[in-house]
Amino acid sequence: MSLDAETRTKARPAGDFSAGAGWADGRYLPVAEITVPILDHGFLKCDACYDTPHVWRGLFFRLDDHLERFAASCRALGLDPGLSREEIRQIMLMTVGLSGQRECMVQIVCTRGLPDPAAPRDPLRNRNRFYCFTRPIDPFGADDGVAVHVSDVVRIPPQSIDPRIKSFHRGDFTRALIAAQARGADTTVLVDLDGNLTEGPGFNLFVVRDRALKTPEAGMLEGVTRRTVLELAAELGLPAAEGKLSPDDLREADEAFMTSTAGGVMAVTRVDERTLSNGAPGPLTVRLRELYWEKKAAGWHGTPVPYDI
Amino acid sequence: MSLDAETRTKARPAGDFSAGAGWADGRYLPVAEITVPILDHGFLKCDACYDTPHVWRGLFFRLDDHLERFAASCRALGLDPGLSREEIRQIMLMTVGLSGQRECMVQIVCTRGLPDPAAPRDPLRNRNRFYCFTRPIDPFGADDGVAVHVSDVVRIPPQSIDPRIKSFHRGDFTRALIAAQARGADTTVLVDLDGNLTEGPGFNLFVVRDRALKTPEAGMLEGVTRRTVLELAAELGLPAAEGKLSPDDLREADEAFMTSTAGGVMAVTRVDERTLSNGAPGPLTVRLRELYWEKKAAGWHGTPVPYDI
Repeated sequence: MSLDAETRTKARPAGDFSAGAGWADGRYLPVAEITVPILDHGFLKCDACYDTPHVWRGLFFRLDDHLERFAASCRALGLDPGLSREEIRQIMLMTVGLSGQRECMVQIVCTRGLPDPAAPRDPLRNRNRFYCFTRPIDPFGADDGVAVHVSDVVRIPPQSIDPRIKSFHRGDFTRALIAAQARGADTTVLVDLDGNLTEGPGFNLFVVRDRALKTPEAGMLEGVTRRTVLELAAELGLPAAEGKLSPDDLREADEAFMTSTAGGVMAVTRVDERTLSNGAPGPLTVRLRELYWEKKAAGWHGTPVPYDI
Repeated sequence: MSLDAETRTKARPAGDFSAGAGWADGRYLPVAEITVPILDHGFLKCDACYDTPHVWRGLFFRLDDHLERFAASCRALGLDPGLSREEIRQIMLMTVGLSGQRECMVQIVCTRGLPDPAAPRDPLRNRNRFYCFTRPIDPFGADDGVAVHVSDVVRIPPQSIDPRIKSFHRGDFTRALIAAQARGADTTVLVDLDGNLTEGPGFNLFVVRDRALKTPEAGMLEGVTRRTVLELAAELGLPAAEGKLSPDDLREADEAFMTSTAGGVMAVTRVDERTLSNGAPGPLTVRLRELYWEKKAAGWHGTPVPYDI
């Protein structure tokens, strides 16, 4: 799938997009020039949703799954990006094409936008805004394993904010992350109000015990890579379940790993003071990771970016 | 207090500030031109704090109390606006002076800023940013009373985000507000995890029963107007306590009112289907409201804005 004929015939926008491209207010810009009006409620009230597929070796991975989740997030918040799904898709392809980047994250955002001066306290009167931009893929840490701190910070609960809607309500993540890094860990996992594990800043969590996978069932974003791993586990004939996961389930796991769009499948080799799977990625983690990259390299769920713009 | 000699001798920045002024990146701009880089974590991760004093009849109200709370919010999040409290104060005075506005809100914001490309997952390496801008005072509703819906949305709990830090984590407010407006109410009050009342979008709540005031003790921002009303109650010899407040305490109150910087003291005359104090502001609400405006008109806690820039 590439850009349609009409888009292709348009002139290439002027500018140097090699450090990242973006789209806002109807035009393409270098990412460093993409800004949000300070009065946009996406900023002032964290009233926005987003999604972030990635491009690897010039292919979007599961682009349509991300577009579908983005549409669901918009619907849930009563936001309208003012563009059809196909238009958003074309903007994303064009943005990455302009950047020339073979590896990047591609973030799409719909904000509540500026309030109606005649009804500044009625969110449904705001004029919603759509943004798209590329940014570098930030790895979580070394391929040989990540050290995780189990936080006592509670992930913002569903009674307040639905975690399945991808939003910028992340102050709990940031607070827990700063504390984890001060303890020498790479990242952190947050708990729910009952003390069960939920998710970390930008990733889902899996544990392996007796060759069976388990991942939290609620209180977190339902990640696209999480779903991918559940599919890969089925392909490998590994039992995999969603359920409650306590901090002790993690500490006493045979193996554990994180999943994220930015990093794929990443081994957890330390949980606070405890070493997991002898301090190296466990065998099933490695198997799933290899299968994930092998299948992606073969074009699985891939959408080619048009770089010949 | 007005601008110091050095600031006064500088040339007035060029531009039309009459629709609102702002300060960003070291210079004054019309508010419509103030933008946030889309990569600022203040936007992408809701990683920011703010405060919003107001100006009425050319006087800031309790400017130093707002500056103190802003400093406390920054400290709690590990944010550094890169300016002294006195410098922030001068920027705020100058911003309003440039706008010429006699009545406005003045918002100051410190964001986490852009990540360090060498350590994009370490929030403490970001370069924090400071913004200041004016915006219109948005009244909550008519002077003769506001209709409130008691929401079942839970205000983001302190286990996740400390509500005493003034931040943009407001998606719970927005969700509850949209539901309240769909039911015909003007605004809404959110509960905590135990079902007790906390606060609404931009205001604290008080109830009056047997000539005694009560306001929630935890789970909400400790508003400057809330503190002001506690002081005014003491001046009037009215007992006033912080404590747990249930939805029934509100429904069965003799009177109730909201407090906010934007509106001062505002009577609640309807709670869902129930009419309070015969549908008109109650006598103690009126007495407190009058005293609030009388004292402000006399310059109480007032800081004059220098309009002769």
